Amino acid sequence: MDIIQFVEQSIGQWRSQRSAHHMAFSQFEAVRSIIDIDMLSSNDPAVVELCQAYDVEPSRAVSPFQMKWEGQSDWDEDNPEVKGSTILVPVPDPVVPHRGKLLRDQGYAETIAAAGEYHFLDDGTFVLITAYERAAAEERIWFANPNLRFRVSLIKTSGGSGVVTASFSSEIKSSKAE
Amino acid sequence: MDIIQFVEQSIGQWRSQRSAHHMAFSQFEAVRSIIDIDMLSSNDPAVVELCQAYDVEPSRAVSPFQMKWEGQSDWDEDNPEVKGSTILVPVPDPVVPHRGKLLRDQGYAETIAAAGEYHFLDDGTFVLITAYERAAAEERIWFANPNLRFRVSLIKTSGGSGVVTASFSSEIKSSKAE
Repeated sequence: MDIIQFVEQSIGQWRSQRSAHHMAFSQFEAVRSIIDIDMLSSNDPAVVELCQAYDVEPSRAVSPFQMKWEGQSDWDEDNPEVKGSTILVPVPDPVVPHRGKLLRDQGYAETIAAAGEYHFLDDGTFVLITAYERAAAEERIWFANPNLRFRVSLIKTSGGSGVVTASFSSEIKSSKAE
Repeated sequence: MDIIQFVEQSIGQWRSQRSAHHMAFSQFEAVRSIIDIDMLSSNDPAVVELCQAYDVEPSRAVSPFQMKWEGQSDWDEDNPEVKGSTILVPVPDPVVPHRGKLLRDQGYAETIAAAGEYHFLDDGTFVLITAYERAAAEERIWFANPNLRFRVSLIKTSGGSGVVTASFSSEIKSSKAE
């Protein structure tokens, strides 16, 4: 698995079931959402701008994509809609191709731009580690088959040892983007 | 990570939060349980008997252990207690030490004895695949730190392509066995 295959398999619309475990209070949260992942052109002004913001030569960007999500949590009944969109730009390491940086204009955990470090495990699992100012996020995504993928996301304290929230998503592809 | 370290880190009492995603109906189930993992002696009659049942020389068994669990699901209000116990016997491959068989006298998914195949990924994740007559189970367990482990369990159709149930557990060590 490399980043090109990984993004290619991810393109489409996904129906997601997510369970969050809030560790300190042993609480469960359930979220249902629709996630749309669409390929972007490397020339897209938003992609070029994001590269420049991180001092990355835009020609090094590989398979940039956009992710949109719209969901409902069982926690917040007054404002249950969780909605967002972000642009993601993989920048593979020129020497070690199964590693690289992933730039994004907004993270899930924080509403600021972030650059994470990704690598692939020997079974094809994609692992992304992103350090924020006051927290760190670790994400693992793997495919059970081309139409089913799993994602485990951890929100950690900035030191990286304590886990604040652990969540698990199962995502079923409902259609393929044209 | 090898099987000896993995079992050693697993010994103790764990407070587990488990979320199951029943894929066909997009349903969520939440289970809270206490899991006790205790080391067994290689000479334990139950260990020797299990080895013999699988035609394995008992001297090849490494770090056998017992697992007990007792939990409560939010699904079945009349009979919410989920309780069980199983003996597990790792048998490492003599040639490829990060792989092996895991014998058990009862599985989670089926109440019959089973021998699964395990291996470790390059980041230390333990992966166990067990084929039953009408289903297959795939389990991944990894440690975020010595007192926190995660487990993703899939129950698949026997062909292995369809996933019936995917579940995610976060397990916090509450005490260490003496």
